[in-house]
Amino acid sequence: MKTCVLYSGGKDSSLMAVILQNLGYQVELVTVNFGKYPSWKPAAESAENLGFQHRILETSEKILQDAVEMILEDGYPNNGLNHLHHQVLLHAASNYHIIADGIRRDDRVPKLNINQIRSLEDSKNVEYMNLAGFGHKTIDDLSRKIFKIKKELTTIDNNSDYEIEIRYLIDELGGDGTSSHIFPEHIQSRVIGWRENE
Amino acid sequence: MKTCVLYSGGKDSSLMAVILQNLGYQVELVTVNFGKYPSWKPAAESAENLGFQHRILETSEKILQDAVEMILEDGYPNNGLNHLHHQVLLHAASNYHIIADGIRRDDRVPKLNINQIRSLEDSKNVEYMNLAGFGHKTIDDLSRKIFKIKKELTTIDNNSDYEIEIRYLIDELGGDGTSSHIFPEHIQSRVIGWRENE
Repeated sequence: MKTCVLYSGGKDSSLMAVILQNLGYQVELVTVNFGKYPSWKPAAESAENLGFQHRILETSEKILQDAVEMILEDGYPNNGLNHLHHQVLLHAASNYHIIADGIRRDDRVPKLNINQIRSLEDSKNVEYMNLAGFGHKTIDDLSRKIFKIKKELTTIDNNSDYEIEIRYLIDELGGDGTSSHIFPEHIQSRVIGWRENE
Repeated sequence: MKTCVLYSGGKDSSLMAVILQNLGYQVELVTVNFGKYPSWKPAAESAENLGFQHRILETSEKILQDAVEMILEDGYPNNGLNHLHHQVLLHAASNYHIIADGIRRDDRVPKLNINQIRSLEDSKNVEYMNLAGFGHKTIDDLSRKIFKIKKELTTIDNNSDYEIEIRYLIDELGGDGTSSHIFPEHIQSRVIGWRENE
């Protein structure tokens, strides 16, 4: 059955896609976009390099605005990111019967708790899967074995995480650079192909 | 690398084995035995039918005795089962660098909490994986697609769960039938081969 894997081009969501494809699911990699900035492009490129179907799921800008409001009020991104991801899953659940993401055991944000997961599954009549059974080290080791990975400083043009459009909107509201107080610079790992293609 | 999947012949641990084999792990299905009763036999048969390597891991009877003591004191199996499974994982971690089981998202018992998992991984320098990212319905659907499954009433001779040796010891201590107050009759699903072999 057609299965939505929420996709950023990172190793976690790429690994989830591989696990589900191996199990016989017809995987579609789905990158959400809120209409502020075309941040889906790096994810689309990773998906193409891996040979997976990729789709952009246009999602209401209101969800992004609400998340940004929470983040600015809190001064840190956790609650806003959780809200955003929850809303995205609900939206994806209106389009697919089986939805998955790359959230892993040690992730703290964004993460649904067990009650939110059950409510999502029951209210939308969907199945939800993630990588909660896999720890950080396991996923790093596996990804290195399976994927060709590029490590680099995150910029607006090489990342498809929620962070990009959130930062874009925050900077639009507060002026350039405002978002860098909330999201510090960091090195990211992006999947750019299969390891055996090297 | 050689990977231990704690194995009962049920669909959860069978599915975990398939996921890890698909990812390139060299899977060994491992059934624990405490020396009270050869309850590993049904699991060995399931493993053989699936074509996986299978091994019996002899484990101290003391662990079984401690668990039974907890169960008799509590009047219900939860704490004893958790204790038993935790000790089994610690024992397996002395024999393998990567260990896994079929514990899934909705399982309550046996289940390690996140602190126990991190302590297991750090103190034993191992990686631990389970099916915490997958819900009940997903695993049922997947198992039906992948495996040939036999549903039947659990007996002492068709099941390799911890329950069998626990019951054996309880009945030895308290007389035949004592354990049936604590473990009610139930229908089990046992993996007896691949679905495509039908």
